Amino acid sequence: METQAAIRTRRSIRDFDPGRKVSDRQLHELFELVGLSPSSYNLQAWEFLVIRAAAGKKKLRACAEDQRHVEEASAAIIVLADTYPIDYARTTMADRVKLGYYDQQKAQATLAKITAWKGKGAEYRKLKAVRSVSLACMALMLAARDMGLDSCPIEGFDSGQVRKGFGIPGRYEIAMLICLGYRKQEPRQRLPRKEVKDIVHLEALGRPLQ
Amino acid sequence: METQAAIRTRRSIRDFDPGRKVSDRQLHELFELVGLSPSSYNLQAWEFLVIRAAAGKKKLRACAEDQRHVEEASAAIIVLADTYPIDYARTTMADRVKLGYYDQQKAQATLAKITAWKGKGAEYRKLKAVRSVSLACMALMLAARDMGLDSCPIEGFDSGQVRKGFGIPGRYEIAMLICLGYRKQEPRQRLPRKEVKDIVHLEALGRPLQ
Repeated sequence: METQAAIRTRRSIRDFDPGRKVSDRQLHELFELVGLSPSSYNLQAWEFLVIRAAAGKKKLRACAEDQRHVEEASAAIIVLADTYPIDYARTTMADRVKLGYYDQQKAQATLAKITAWKGKGAEYRKLKAVRSVSLACMALMLAARDMGLDSCPIEGFDSGQVRKGFGIPGRYEIAMLICLGYRKQEPRQRLPRKEVKDIVHLEALGRPLQ
Repeated sequence: METQAAIRTRRSIRDFDPGRKVSDRQLHELFELVGLSPSSYNLQAWEFLVIRAAAGKKKLRACAEDQRHVEEASAAIIVLADTYPIDYARTTMADRVKLGYYDQQKAQATLAKITAWKGKGAEYRKLKAVRSVSLACMALMLAARDMGLDSCPIEGFDSGQVRKGFGIPGRYEIAMLICLGYRKQEPRQRLPRKEVKDIVHLEALGRPLQ
């Protein structure tokens, strides 16, 4: 599907067809594309816990303000943001040296910089991780649409309850949930969007792009 | 361009062709697409300050670890996340009632919920805003690619310095910078990505999707 069509037909779907399943093969294709998203130092601090089993989706729905699409979608995805991806930093720095992006000295200096994130406090690391992982989430939703799938991002959930219910270690911030499946019917009219002039400023705030 | 092609050929470009400019018309087309991104309650808490003037880009480069692509790209975008989008909440709730999504009572209850964000502290609101705006940023980068444009997201900048230099009010979190322009040459080989089995768990952590 054309990119613009994927963007224009992506909708936050809340009525999923419970009879149509997302297969392992589809998940594989989808996440291979998601993994191509950009991230600081290529740290790829994203992990995805995909829940397709009925009991798991039921449990997750109970953590997510009882939103029924969590249970009715073929898969509900718990999106995890690693707030301290230091282990992988070593691997990706080695990749950089191997491919000639960095020399050893720059790789070491960068590793020291990433190591220092630990001292910058939880808020700093959470913001960094969630920002990065959210980029991948949008790639997920657009790639899904391209594959004929639908999605719905969810912010309304009890993070502590999800953490406890699914055994998520403290190093991960639970960035969002995403429902994945097939739309049951065409959704209602899209809610209006702001006009371009209301969101884009040229050179200085208050100088809208007309 | 096909969505998968946009995803696969999107690269974080650091060598921009300084001779090729991004026009107002292109910006308009791009941001119309960006605006279709999903957001909690359709709040669209994103604003974009687009800097194309030489002096502005030079100033921004100085706030961004002297990264030369900030200055060499046709446009450097300061991405703003409104941490308390209460004014627009009233508009979007009225839209919901008008289109039959919500009744008056639900619209009022939701507005009260959004109003309560103010009491939840700066970290909560920052995380929420940055998460939402980051989704739009990935849509921006993919839509740009589809239009033949290139981009580079930047996290390495001094937020206080950008705030001061460009007069950004405190209610906005500066979510990231994005360079926008045309690639000068084909970039180097993409850095390796994690394998799908390393980022996707099925049903429980530690059960990788093979």
